Amino acid sequence: MTTRERILQASLALFNAEGVANVPFNRIATELGMSQGNLHYHFKRKEEIVDWLWRRFERESEPILAGPAAPLASTDDLWLFLHLGFEKIHDYRFIYRDIDSLFATFPLLGTRLRALTAQSVATLRRLCEELVAAGCMNANDDDIEVLAMQMMLTATCWFSFARVLPESEDTGPGRAAYQVLSLLAPYLANDERVYIEYLRRKYID
Amino acid sequence: MTTRERILQASLALFNAEGVANVPFNRIATELGMSQGNLHYHFKRKEEIVDWLWRRFERESEPILAGPAAPLASTDDLWLFLHLGFEKIHDYRFIYRDIDSLFATFPLLGTRLRALTAQSVATLRRLCEELVAAGCMNANDDDIEVLAMQMMLTATCWFSFARVLPESEDTGPGRAAYQVLSLLAPYLANDERVYIEYLRRKYID
Repeated sequence: MTTRERILQASLALFNAEGVANVPFNRIATELGMSQGNLHYHFKRKEEIVDWLWRRFERESEPILAGPAAPLASTDDLWLFLHLGFEKIHDYRFIYRDIDSLFATFPLLGTRLRALTAQSVATLRRLCEELVAAGCMNANDDDIEVLAMQMMLTATCWFSFARVLPESEDTGPGRAAYQVLSLLAPYLANDERVYIEYLRRKYID
Repeated sequence: MTTRERILQASLALFNAEGVANVPFNRIATELGMSQGNLHYHFKRKEEIVDWLWRRFERESEPILAGPAAPLASTDDLWLFLHLGFEKIHDYRFIYRDIDSLFATFPLLGTRLRALTAQSVATLRRLCEELVAAGCMNANDDDIEVLAMQMMLTATCWFSFARVLPESEDTGPGRAAYQVLSLLAPYLANDERVYIEYLRRKYID
């Protein structure tokens, strides 16, 4: 792994764990047992690292966001999409955990994050419509609008919400996935509901 | 209104709009057309103001959190509870909009906010159980657990989530209330569902 890549990965881990605003630039060098000079040779400022990580998140999200090529034929297909999305957001959870400080430092980020969210909600809405067309789900346009928005809210805010939950609660990505699946359950056809019940047990038992 | 109270209210408005970390202490005096000396006479530091506002939020939340004295007899009763809770969180939304920076400055806040969240989720769970007992709702313990958690997630994270939604979206407390009511809809008895449909139309039309 290149030094540059080592710096990016250590920064990502620190930002995710403590929030960008709480990690001083020099701390990243300390964490890697690297001289400050070496760190500064690769990146001039902390903001430059954040920018690199954000662009990487955006690029890696693109293929997930486009959604599956073929129309969904079962809840299992939606599940795969949600799982990939949750993992990606969890990998880069620093982005959603401290939006204020990030937006204040990078004004352009606001516009791009809003575009990404709109695209995600549109994809979620389309996938729900495909499930209705495939006879797996029984939901009208209003239901789908609420479900898509609620899935997106859970995906982006769960790891922030986890910080105000009692520390004894399981708050990992699995629990978040269980929450999202449970939102769908009442709208699913009977066969599909049995599958979701099976899946969600995997996540909380 | 006393000078002290004017400072508290102006600070609350600024913190809600821009986030605590983005409002320098002296900005509060400027906003009020007050000398820095006068501001400093009443509060030594910004943190002192945050502490006062947080305690006020905690105190004002207590009677709401306890829930209605009599067991719920209709969805309308739950609605009133949710409405009061959403309004209170909206009034003090700076608390949930930048949790990282707040926790870093006030380590004790974390413990108290987690206790408040646990108490809220427990009350939401109890109110759902009362609706089931009253025959208004059809949901098992797993459903209720998911609903209570999802209502709390929406209540505390909606106004942060709003910042990553397209600016054309309506993201006020009414829309949040509509989201929460919609989560309940599939679990309600027919009569109650008609009432919720009526209520939710009020919020989006």
